[in-house]
Amino acid sequence: MKKIDHIGIAVKNIDSALAYYINTLGLKLLGIEEVKSQHVKVAFIDAGNIKIELLEPLGSEGAVAKYIEKRGEGIHHVAFGVSNIRNRMEELKKNGVQLLQEEPKLGAGGAEVAFLHPKSSFGVLYELCDKGDV
Amino acid sequence: MKKIDHIGIAVKNIDSALAYYINTLGLKLLGIEEVKSQHVKVAFIDAGNIKIELLEPLGSEGAVAKYIEKRGEGIHHVAFGVSNIRNRMEELKKNGVQLLQEEPKLGAGGAEVAFLHPKSSFGVLYELCDKGDV
Repeated sequence: MKKIDHIGIAVKNIDSALAYYINTLGLKLLGIEEVKSQHVKVAFIDAGNIKIELLEPLGSEGAVAKYIEKRGEGIHHVAFGVSNIRNRMEELKKNGVQLLQEEPKLGAGGAEVAFLHPKSSFGVLYELCDKGDV
Repeated sequence: MKKIDHIGIAVKNIDSALAYYINTLGLKLLGIEEVKSQHVKVAFIDAGNIKIELLEPLGSEGAVAKYIEKRGEGIHHVAFGVSNIRNRMEELKKNGVQLLQEEPKLGAGGAEVAFLHPKSSFGVLYELCDKGDV
C-alpha cells in the first residue's frame, strides 16, 4: 500500500469524456482496451504522478454499468499499487477488512486486482492493483 | 494541470476514518486542521505519490455536509496541483468549462483553490489547488 496507481472514473461514453480530458484539460491518452471479464472498455490517461482510468460499460452487466445506473457518472474507485497482492489481501482480512472477492481477478493491463468493500473503507471503493512491478 | 495533489474524501467522523487509514491500511497522518471558510475539519494522509484528504463537516452547512446527506460517505473530489491558478481558470473558461466560482478561495494548508463544475467534467468534481510551489 505504498502509492496510488490510478483513479477509476465511470463514464457513459469514453470518446466524449476523452475529448474533455485530452483537448480541454490537456492530459495525454496512454491507451484503450476492453476488459471483457469486467464488462468495461477502459482508457488510461496520464495525470502526471498517477493515471486516470475512464471506464465505459460494455452493455448493462457489470459493476460499472450498475454504478452509472444508480449514481450517474463519477468517481468509481481508487486503486493502490501493491506487490504480492495475495499477502496484502490476507493481511487486510486479518485486520477485519471485508474484501469483495477471495481471489484476485484479471484487470486492465494484465494486472491482478481485488476490491475492498466500501463498508470497510468509509464509503470508498478501494482496489488493490498488482502489476508485478511495484 | 501537471499532477494530482490529493483525493478528497467525505467522512462523518475523522477520528474513526483515521483509525482505519493509519492502523489498518498502514498510511501516515500528515496533519489535521479546520478550514472554517469551507465548514470542514481536514486530515491529510500520505498515500505515497499523492495525499488523501479526509473531510469531516463542521455542522450542517457547507458542500461536504450536503454531499454526505445526499450520497453518504465517499470520494468527494480530485485535486490537480497547479501554478498560476487564475490563468488556469481563465484558460478553462475560454475552453467552455464551467467553474463553481469566479475567484479562487482559501483552502486547507493556505492553498488557493477553485472547483470545476461536475457537469463539465463528466460527473467528477475537480479542484484546482495552487500552493504557490508546484
